[in-house]
Amino acid sequence: GSPAAKKPCTSLRYEARAQLPGIHPMASRLLKLMEEKKSNLCVSADVTDSGELLEVAETLGPLICVLKTHVDILHNFTPDTTRRLSELADKHHFLIFEDRKFADIGNTVKHQYEGGIYQIASWSHIINAHAVPGSGVVKGLEAVGKPLDRGCLLIAEMSSQGSLATGPYTQAVVKMADEHSDFVFGFICGSKISGKPEFIHMTPGVNMQSEGDSLGQQYTSPEEVICTKGSDVIIVGRGILAAADRVKAAEAYKKAGWEAYLKRLSLTT
Amino acid sequence: GSPAAKKPCTSLRYEARAQLPGIHPMASRLLKLMEEKKSNLCVSADVTDSGELLEVAETLGPLICVLKTHVDILHNFTPDTTRRLSELADKHHFLIFEDRKFADIGNTVKHQYEGGIYQIASWSHIINAHAVPGSGVVKGLEAVGKPLDRGCLLIAEMSSQGSLATGPYTQAVVKMADEHSDFVFGFICGSKISGKPEFIHMTPGVNMQSEGDSLGQQYTSPEEVICTKGSDVIIVGRGILAAADRVKAAEAYKKAGWEAYLKRLSLTT
Repeated sequence: GSPAAKKPCTSLRYEARAQLPGIHPMASRLLKLMEEKKSNLCVSADVTDSGELLEVAETLGPLICVLKTHVDILHNFTPDTTRRLSELADKHHFLIFEDRKFADIGNTVKHQYEGGIYQIASWSHIINAHAVPGSGVVKGLEAVGKPLDRGCLLIAEMSSQGSLATGPYTQAVVKMADEHSDFVFGFICGSKISGKPEFIHMTPGVNMQSEGDSLGQQYTSPEEVICTKGSDVIIVGRGILAAADRVKAAEAYKKAGWEAYLKRLSLTT
Repeated sequence: GSPAAKKPCTSLRYEARAQLPGIHPMASRLLKLMEEKKSNLCVSADVTDSGELLEVAETLGPLICVLKTHVDILHNFTPDTTRRLSELADKHHFLIFEDRKFADIGNTVKHQYEGGIYQIASWSHIINAHAVPGSGVVKGLEAVGKPLDRGCLLIAEMSSQGSLATGPYTQAVVKMADEHSDFVFGFICGSKISGKPEFIHMTPGVNMQSEGDSLGQQYTSPEEVICTKGSDVIIVGRGILAAADRVKAAEAYKKAGWEAYLKRLSLTT
């Protein structure tokens, strides 16, 4: 259909949203660096070797706003891995987002976030959680993360086939975010699900080449995600990591994501 | 109300269910050792020290059917921790259940289950997953766990306040289990949610003293869980771990759980 027939896109610039009164400090920080780097690209660093993770951070760091990690798939993790990752985040101005998908009762996620071998709270700026346990999961995480100025995204929708995070479930997640906006600053989702410009929307399953994998992953394009669906950040994994030239691929996604953002602004002003 | 007014209890003995044709090997193994040890008690070993975890396994091992772990909260985990835990599981005839609550897309949970520092698939007989990502989460886990003769529980309900795992969500989980019964052999739930005696129902949030915590946990009694709600296994954490004498407390829960099971049988025959 014509652009006018599509879902209206968000008209506020990222930098204007960063200044909103009462915005979460992590959301403000992210929006500012997105505008500064002209990047709404989050790379999903789904690699199993610590050396490769650090190489991805070093080479793609200048192009991205967020580096999404799965520290629990690294076969050779040591505390040095996350120490060096933090240095690269400072050097290249990106935020680290450990995609842990916390999904237990409050008393348990507190320990999982703060303790263990990974000590996620000590190095990851952003974490995420499923809302399925009820608001205790957020309260438990907040008890650890709030004093460290961390922020949390709630998983409101998933890119995988047959996801149960739809309809009333997604609405309940938005409500939970509204009620815990001192720690929750946005969503993992397929499209804009909250009208509040203070919330960041981040969308996984973005790929310009492929339509999916054999385990139910389903892909969408940067333009679709940012311009049509009104999300803020594209999360790209295999589209970049499986490319012959990762830097070149990341540049293409960065450009596509930013152009979709500019197009969205032009459509709504 | 009178017993007759209550939800009907399951009338088959654990040992009879263990012999059902087409039962999952892990369900059969668990039901047999429950009958053998006269225990439907799973202890949730929510401790942060590896030495303490091994002590819990050594001292409570003879009393339990399953030891539930959170290996990612151990501050001093090494591969030796799980090697020694496996030895204690063999010695005392219990199954290990890493309560990881996998909740990502299939391609990611495969790595989380098999790899990383913890290599969960190599030592945990049982794992669990949230159904929220859709069936890809089970397919990804099954690709790793099925060749190792592991089994998976789906989280159909949670004991925490405001859980979103209710109604149509829970029904979708039961459907997913039915469709993947070659790897899924039961549920984490508050009450019996499937009429199929091949499925094991395990219920957390069991405590004979307390009614809850400040982060939304809500407790029920062994009799309520096994006899009234028709579940098979009681999962007890703080009711035992926070007791002055853990062995004595575990003996009390074992007795209460087993008597509730015998009462359930007497009510339905």
